[in-house]
Amino acid sequence: MKIEQVDFFYLAMPEITTAGDGSQDALLVRVEAGGHVGWGECEASPLVSIAAFVCPMSHGACRPVSASVLGQTIDSPADIARIAATIELDSMDLLQAAHTWSGIEMALWDLLGRVRGEPVWKLLGYNRSEKKTPYASQLFGDTPQETLRLAGNVRRDGFTAAKFGWGPVGRGSVGADADQFMAAREGLGPDGILLIDVGQIWGEDVDAAAARLPALEEAGAVWLEEPFRASAYAAYSMLAARSPRVKLAGGEGAHNVDMARNLIDFGAVGFVQIDCGRIGGIGPAKKVADHAVARGVTYVNHTFTSHLALSASIQPYAGLAEHRICEYPVSPKPVAHEMTCNHLQRDENGQIAVPDAPGLGMEINPETIRTFSLDVELKVAGVTLFPQ
Amino acid sequence: MKIEQVDFFYLAMPEITTAGDGSQDALLVRVEAGGHVGWGECEASPLVSIAAFVCPMSHGACRPVSASVLGQTIDSPADIARIAATIELDSMDLLQAAHTWSGIEMALWDLLGRVRGEPVWKLLGYNRSEKKTPYASQLFGDTPQETLRLAGNVRRDGFTAAKFGWGPVGRGSVGADADQFMAAREGLGPDGILLIDVGQIWGEDVDAAAARLPALEEAGAVWLEEPFRASAYAAYSMLAARSPRVKLAGGEGAHNVDMARNLIDFGAVGFVQIDCGRIGGIGPAKKVADHAVARGVTYVNHTFTSHLALSASIQPYAGLAEHRICEYPVSPKPVAHEMTCNHLQRDENGQIAVPDAPGLGMEINPETIRTFSLDVELKVAGVTLFPQ
Repeated sequence: MKIEQVDFFYLAMPEITTAGDGSQDALLVRVEAGGHVGWGECEASPLVSIAAFVCPMSHGACRPVSASVLGQTIDSPADIARIAATIELDSMDLLQAAHTWSGIEMALWDLLGRVRGEPVWKLLGYNRSEKKTPYASQLFGDTPQETLRLAGNVRRDGFTAAKFGWGPVGRGSVGADADQFMAAREGLGPDGILLIDVGQIWGEDVDAAAARLPALEEAGAVWLEEPFRASAYAAYSMLAARSPRVKLAGGEGAHNVDMARNLIDFGAVGFVQIDCGRIGGIGPAKKVADHAVARGVTYVNHTFTSHLALSASIQPYAGLAEHRICEYPVSPKPVAHEMTCNHLQRDENGQIAVPDAPGLGMEINPETIRTFSLDVELKVAGVTLFPQ
Repeated sequence: MKIEQVDFFYLAMPEITTAGDGSQDALLVRVEAGGHVGWGECEASPLVSIAAFVCPMSHGACRPVSASVLGQTIDSPADIARIAATIELDSMDLLQAAHTWSGIEMALWDLLGRVRGEPVWKLLGYNRSEKKTPYASQLFGDTPQETLRLAGNVRRDGFTAAKFGWGPVGRGSVGADADQFMAAREGLGPDGILLIDVGQIWGEDVDAAAARLPALEEAGAVWLEEPFRASAYAAYSMLAARSPRVKLAGGEGAHNVDMARNLIDFGAVGFVQIDCGRIGGIGPAKKVADHAVARGVTYVNHTFTSHLALSASIQPYAGLAEHRICEYPVSPKPVAHEMTCNHLQRDENGQIAVPDAPGLGMEINPETIRTFSLDVELKVAGVTLFPQ
């Protein structure tokens, strides 16, 4: 099969707020090859990722992503890896390329799985798909009272694990943060798995992060996520050495395999969190999962958007029974929730699994595309580059 | 002063080839504040970097670069650092942001220097600007004979240092590469400083790189540049351990300070090469220079475009007398060469220095902008985002 067509759909809520809620827009990708179709999703900034697909070449190592994709043969996972390697060299100086390619790569796995009648995790070499324990992923409330209420809702909703992130934490005092952590714990109950995400708030300030460790320990947090900038490995490893009980988590900022491996090898994280919509798709994420297993680190998906992205993000570690925790956006915006007709529903034990269906197993809702899509037009020197 | 206006000029040669020649197009940036003007340049992919300035917000940590720049106060270097820190958090998930910001940041230093009547290196804290030894930076010929000819030209042109890069090297046999290295040495003469750049060709294959070390040693190469992917630190450090004589060089792919520091701390390079058009401008580059000094590593600029970018790239290490080598594009395309009215000319000893003039000390040629600029139009949902 040849890749005949790649279409992008820029979907967005009518209003976008400054909340750290990544489900407010989406860049959906449809790939056609040999009369078959696959779907994927790029994480964040749809306009910029579209531009990286269609932009004019700057030089031999800064070609648009389209140059390495359109017309290429796609018959096996090896073909996906080959195209990825081409982009790595030919779009080396195009920073956004990794995000653009991520959605296309997902769509190629989906397409290949549909053609072969197999779920992606089988194409990746797993014999079975293990159930995952979803953690309700949401933002801290503006006050501890609000966080308490949110955590109580999560528990009542049947979740046994929850992550609270961003919001006011790290922006005020150590005591204020402690109140937030304890409110989350109180709402979640004594047995719930509590995870804390601070969105790089401390840059590389190890002492600022370490000052919160006693409260995180008292609240029984399993991990502290992204205390520092994505590549501040030295800071990560210093904090890890000071935190025997609360493990560090990170990795969503990785836009290639090396960055994720480095966070494990040099940053000493206990959990590596990979966003398939950023790292270059499912293939590189599987390589990170292999590395995590070899290093005794736990792999976790990073997903804050649709269930299409959720299914894609679980495939790379679907077969790893001991890597059980799974990010699960608890209240995505309609543009993300309604992107798919089906969803990864929790079973009677509160667990989820990727669909036992060809490809990513998700059905795209054309009505959602119609409702939320924005027209995009890119022109250079009078020539329309998009729509193509 | 407030930042009132940021203008982008997409300049390009009429024809762009697949050669690894980064001077074929340019994204020139003009910033206006308080009636003053500064100029900067983003490295590569003009359309995508423009898109990252004007794109709609995706969420609170994925805002367009413009949101953190327009209307901001700019009275001191601390203001530049403050804006950079805002972008780091507010455009965290917008991968291309670092490249877009790089050109704006340069322009802000230029503007501030012009307002204060001081060169940028003084604003950075240096007491004097040291002369640098430019190395003629060019591509390998397609054959050793062509490389021999090119190297001879360089020597006759008075250069005492030269870098040959990309082209066929690493794509054929070890013997073929050896012939290229020796041809470069022969043409350059026995005393010339010879540098070799292979553009990440070996991915993370340490053995493939190590197989070339004997020939590199025989040719007396001072460094081997970018044997591996930008963040493949483990491969870098393994090769460094096997190469006592030929040092490793890298860093042009760093799009933040952490990545460059990591290449030093975990990759064991002997030379760190920073492109101010990618790393976020001059401020972060100066931080890398400080780190290099502390670690006994030599700082080098990475520049393959205009003399505006060249001046910007030297400022961060202008005051470091022992960090003497300087990348100097030897045959940039007219769009890059004619971007500025003045140039960093070699003196009677073949050395160069940044202008002892306010800001970056470069005068932009408006005629070049008129000749080479391409119209860009970006629309989302019927709204024209660019030109603004």
